[in-house]
Amino acid sequence: KLGAIEAGGTKFVCAVGNGEGEVFERMKVDTDHPDKTIPAVIEFFKTHQVDALGIASFGPVDVDKDSPTYGNITSTPKPGWKDYPFISHFEKELNIPVGFTTDVNGAALGELTYGAAKGLDGCLYITVGTGIGAGAISNHQLVQGFSHPEMGHILVRRHPEDHYEGHCPFHKDCLEGLAAGPAIEARWGKKGHLLTDHALAWEIEADYLAQALMQYILVLAPKRIIMGGGVMKQERLFPLIREKVKDLLNGYVAFPQVAEHIDDYIVPPGLGDNAGITGALILAGEAYKTVKVK
Amino acid sequence: KLGAIEAGGTKFVCAVGNGEGEVFERMKVDTDHPDKTIPAVIEFFKTHQVDALGIASFGPVDVDKDSPTYGNITSTPKPGWKDYPFISHFEKELNIPVGFTTDVNGAALGELTYGAAKGLDGCLYITVGTGIGAGAISNHQLVQGFSHPEMGHILVRRHPEDHYEGHCPFHKDCLEGLAAGPAIEARWGKKGHLLTDHALAWEIEADYLAQALMQYILVLAPKRIIMGGGVMKQERLFPLIREKVKDLLNGYVAFPQVAEHIDDYIVPPGLGDNAGITGALILAGEAYKTVKVK
Ligand SMILES: Nc1ncnc2c1ncn2[C@@H]1O[C@H](COP(=O)(O)OP(=O)(O)O)[C@@H](O)[C@H]1O
Ligand SMILES: Nc1ncnc2c1ncn2[C@@H]1O[C@H](COP(=O)(O)OP(=O)(O)O)[C@@H](O)[C@H]1O
Ligand SMILES: [Zn+2]
Ligand SMILES: [Zn+2]
Repeated sequence: KLGAIEAGGTKFVCAVGNGEGEVFERMKVDTDHPDKTIPAVIEFFKTHQVDALGIASFGPVDVDKDSPTYGNITSTPKPGWKDYPFISHFEKELNIPVGFTTDVNGAALGELTYGAAKGLDGCLYITVGTGIGAGAISNHQLVQGFSHPEMGHILVRRHPEDHYEGHCPFHKDCLEGLAAGPAIEARWGKKGHLLTDHALAWEIEADYLAQALMQYILVLAPKRIIMGGGVMKQERLFPLIREKVKDLLNGYVAFPQVAEHIDDYIVPPGLGDNAGITGALILAGEAYKTVKVK
Repeated sequence: KLGAIEAGGTKFVCAVGNGEGEVFERMKVDTDHPDKTIPAVIEFFKTHQVDALGIASFGPVDVDKDSPTYGNITSTPKPGWKDYPFISHFEKELNIPVGFTTDVNGAALGELTYGAAKGLDGCLYITVGTGIGAGAISNHQLVQGFSHPEMGHILVRRHPEDHYEGHCPFHKDCLEGLAAGPAIEARWGKKGHLLTDHALAWEIEADYLAQALMQYILVLAPKRIIMGGGVMKQERLFPLIREKVKDLLNGYVAFPQVAEHIDDYIVPPGLGDNAGITGALILAGEAYKTVKVK
């Protein structure tokens, strides 16, 4: 039996399942101070006696296996979570192997293995929600360097009809500052789900997201792009984004994925809201195997 | 003995060397119609009886090993080179194994193995010359998806004092359209090497390149960034770019590479103009080993 945690900024989703991505049990707790949240999570996994655990966590996190702080949350403003040693705490408490990555890397892994990118050797998963983040897999490996990607903060060109200054505390009008859910709310004075009929709102949103996808395509050439998160529940965004990506690239990337089959290239998650927890289960399976081999 | 080709848009550099990146013989030919250029190249390698060949080529090229057109140049405007079957022609003529990648991937490989990124498991190499291109290695693997990256064409925000429209035939004012050598020449009416004292020219150039590096850092978190090509001979660009990258990230990427050691993070090539040919030699060595294993 495998355990999985999708650790988000607002809630922890915990699951017990197997290596095929099947979930048997599920539990949610709010993301409070770790002293409150973590004991409930430990309790859940102790009760279900899982053999390995996979964690897909909000970030930034230390994903460098050679680092002394591997598996820690690093610099979050969330009270109690700065430098929280995720892996080592769970390894100690549960005495089982623990796999670890970011929430969006987890979702990319889930979608690649059982979802919208099944059968490919890589994909990019982007979430557009309270924040914007993305994870990428190239040639079966998570793309990372001195750290995991922070793709949500890339720069975009301002839409001529957009006068909202942007809310990113670091960059003001980076992608996340202009296009995450809270930016939409601040720009129009209403939450996204109440703006369904506001054509300009989605025109601007699609413009920023298409610019971002163009950059990701030029840097990574991902085999498929999967867009999830609360804001992407606005299904009208998909055709708008696809058209704008084509316009922006303007024939430069002449590959059939983009030129002819863009409807199959920029897609919603195949696993719906389960992408992250499925990825965490896969990580648990990998952690289990790695230890057995040793 | 290993053979190597750095196939550029203006000239082919051919070399004979060994798996340690040492070059014994070197030869240059202009990039003319392949009917003229290729026989001279074949002749050179026949004379030197090399055991394997590595090619780092201008692009776009097909780098997908599962593709029927693997190893071809794809869509270049250069007369005679469109769909030119690089690998298969050389394999047939020389009857030796051939390794193949893009020119910038080759340079990244060379710098990672013997140059400015030696000892790391990845890096990004960007050339700023007649065009702008980059190659990235993450966890010892070249980053690629449905194709190799085309990072030179990412979008940047226009510098407020720049009124040049940009020369990219696809995107007009993408990075390459605004910051490659010919853009500098068109903007100021003089070639780059004659603009050494023109402070604003390098201020604008550094702004665009720093924006590009910011995007690459956020998407790939490369372990080191190596900047080569004719335009980067302007050494004053390095301190300007480093400062601007820090300003743009504004503390968001709090890793020591960027925050404390940026002088060692954004650097010129350790191999000078030999990065590409060295990478091609490494590719030749890999092709030789792969065939021996079979
Ligand atoms: N149907 C909808 N249309 C537009 N925006 C939505 C919709 N549903 C949720 N959102 C926005 O998505 C954001 C929440 O994203 P979500 O992915 O659910 O959570 P989180 O990013 O915190 O994990 C909020 O800003 C919310 O306003
Ligand atoms: N010292 C220099 N300062 C500024 N620009 C230069 C300098 N030397 C060459 N360049 C510019 O670099 C470009 C050529 O780049 P290079 O990397 O040498 O060739 P290519 O990209 O064709 O392989 C030209 O546009 C040239 O004007
Ligand atoms: Zn930001
Ligand atoms: Zn362009």
